[in-house]
Amino acid sequence: MDRFRQERQRQNTRILDSEHLGIKRFFNLDDAAYRDGALDARTKEMMGLVASMVLRCNDCIDYHIIQCVQLGISEAELVEAFNVALVVGGSIVIPHLRHAFDTLDVMLSEQDEPGS
Amino acid sequence: MDRFRQERQRQNTRILDSEHLGIKRFFNLDDAAYRDGALDARTKEMMGLVASMVLRCNDCIDYHIIQCVQLGISEAELVEAFNVALVVGGSIVIPHLRHAFDTLDVMLSEQDEPGS
Amino acid sequence: MDRFRQERQRQNTRILDSEHLGIKRFFNLDDAAYRDGALDARTKEMMGLVASMVLRCNDCIDYHIIQCVQLGISEAELVEAFNVALVVGGSIVIPHLRHAFDTLDVMLSEQDEPGS
Amino acid sequence: MDRFRQERQRQNTRILDSEHLGIKRFFNLDDAAYRDGALDARTKEMMGLVASMVLRCNDCIDYHIIQCVQLGISEAELVEAFNVALVVGGSIVIPHLRHAFDTLDVMLSEQDEPGS
Amino acid sequence: MDRFRQERQRQNTRILDSEHLGIKRFFNLDDAAYRDGALDARTKEMMGLVASMVLRCNDCIDYHIIQCVQLGISEAELVEAFNVALVVGGSIVIPHLRHAFDTLDVMLSEQDEPGS
Amino acid sequence: MDRFRQERQRQNTRILDSEHLGIKRFFNLDDAAYRDGALDARTKEMMGLVASMVLRCNDCIDYHIIQCVQLGISEAELVEAFNVALVVGGSIVIPHLRHAFDTLDVMLSEQDEPGS
Repeated sequence: MDRFRQERQRQNTRILDSEHLGIKRFFNLDDAAYRDGALDARTKEMMGLVASMVLRCNDCIDYHIIQCVQLGISEAELVEAFNVALVVGGSIVIPHLRHAFDTLDVMLSEQDEPGS
Repeated sequence: MDRFRQERQRQNTRILDSEHLGIKRFFNLDDAAYRDGALDARTKEMMGLVASMVLRCNDCIDYHIIQCVQLGISEAELVEAFNVALVVGGSIVIPHLRHAFDTLDVMLSEQDEPGS
Repeated sequence: MDRFRQERQRQNTRILDSEHLGIKRFFNLDDAAYRDGALDARTKEMMGLVASMVLRCNDCIDYHIIQCVQLGISEAELVEAFNVALVVGGSIVIPHLRHAFDTLDVMLSEQDEPGS
Repeated sequence: MDRFRQERQRQNTRILDSEHLGIKRFFNLDDAAYRDGALDARTKEMMGLVASMVLRCNDCIDYHIIQCVQLGISEAELVEAFNVALVVGGSIVIPHLRHAFDTLDVMLSEQDEPGS
Repeated sequence: MDRFRQERQRQNTRILDSEHLGIKRFFNLDDAAYRDGALDARTKEMMGLVASMVLRCNDCIDYHIIQCVQLGISEAELVEAFNVALVVGGSIVIPHLRHAFDTLDVMLSEQDEPGS
Repeated sequence: MDRFRQERQRQNTRILDSEHLGIKRFFNLDDAAYRDGALDARTKEMMGLVASMVLRCNDCIDYHIIQCVQLGISEAELVEAFNVALVVGGSIVIPHLRHAFDTLDVMLSEQDEPGS
């Protein structure tokens, strides 16, 4: 999970170093979309998670699960979000459901470690 | 909007009349996915809406907007959900964003009518 | 259904009149893919139908249902194919499942007419 | 075609009237992406067209064909772009290829009219 | 291939251990969709394979190829199914076609081993 | 990058050795689509790149970036193509944007090596 975050960070820095104004602004829009507003960040991160699952993108699923766990969303809540994605997106989502459970387990075990 | 609901009803009856057990069970699973549980129906209907927008299905968008408005979700909240879908799914979502605003306006004007 | 076929014919003629060799060859490949071979045409048309349903294209669904009914595939067989598509593709397929049943009913009623 | 443009205009005005900052900024980013830069507008509009065809969005296809014809891109060039989209996206693109040719023909006939 | 099956088994057990009724029922529906019925299991597994290829999911492709080979579907039949998927889904399917041939070769060589 | 090319080559040879006429012809059509014609190869390779990004296929992205760099398309031009794909396809494209920048950097550093 740490390597995922470091690699992601290295690549984002590379992208923003390209100094393309459109890409930079897109990244800002993307960050802003999940901040508290008329809906709270929790709800919007879970929406981002469901959208990532039905569009079947493991990297995006990991990112939103990390955010969700950090915002205190429980396993039971996340599993309900997984189920919405499964029903909407069908069995083609199942490999990503497996991935999502694995990531969730890593995040939950990180939380249980003393000092984390 | 009434015609949408009647046509949808006629077609669902036709499908369930086919007596295919798998299809019947799928429809039950689909209904169950949006009921109050670890997450409330409001949150799950909005997840279904965002999933429908990024997967670009107008009929599904209409269905979830109707449910959301009936559950008392405000225009400001729905527009935030639209924005998450737009950022995740990109400009290819824009024609469906237009459709979503039109449906929202019809639903809101229905609500304002006396006796509705 | 007749208008669907005529409109489709008019448009295909227009496309092939553009004299683009790549497009012309693609259309030939497309026709050839569904002819009897190691698998029979029936099986391949049903594969094309399931692929069209999970990719959610009503025009393609109509085309393959027409072919399937003309090849003598029964309603029960088609409904099983619909179910595979529904499970693989999820509830986002449901509007196309409704469309598929409507097209199937039109095709079946055409078959029942004397002289058809 | 005029109705398409008016309807599109009405809906965009409605969306921007919602005063959602994220949506407003997304629309600006979308406009900016197709302006002359390291690549010229012609090339970028054709990229937008091919992307719209493989993602199978008729409204987006219409928008980009209008832009392309106004930028002086020829029928032969557009048909080559259509072919790239057909090969990348497969036969599921064919209904959108039909639509694209119809829109192209409307645009070309508009251009031929005196006073247009 | 063995590791694929073990990993898949471990993850499915984890998912079903989450005791989410909707997910459990979805898994049952998914299993049931490919059993002999109005269409035989062979035909339905090949439909699942084609659907997995056009939706571009390697894990799902592997699963259905394993099932197909175990049901006695020949290489020639599978290659015809691959071709339908390629024509419907276009060149974007080619990386998954490469993957499918690799999986098929592993499955066929497993079958040739004495004692397997 | 060399391993990518060798593996790709090995797999394509395997596929063409299957002697399936439809697949062989599809591969020919695919090659032909990017050759100079009414549009030049540069423009068409960039279209293929944008299509691969919005359809989110890393292998296809790598292939088209290699072709683009060999045709002399500059980093600034490629980043503009990336931006079109990002705006059309949304934040779900971002993991593939990261991948595209990594591949671009490998290609550019290969070019800078003496004797390459």
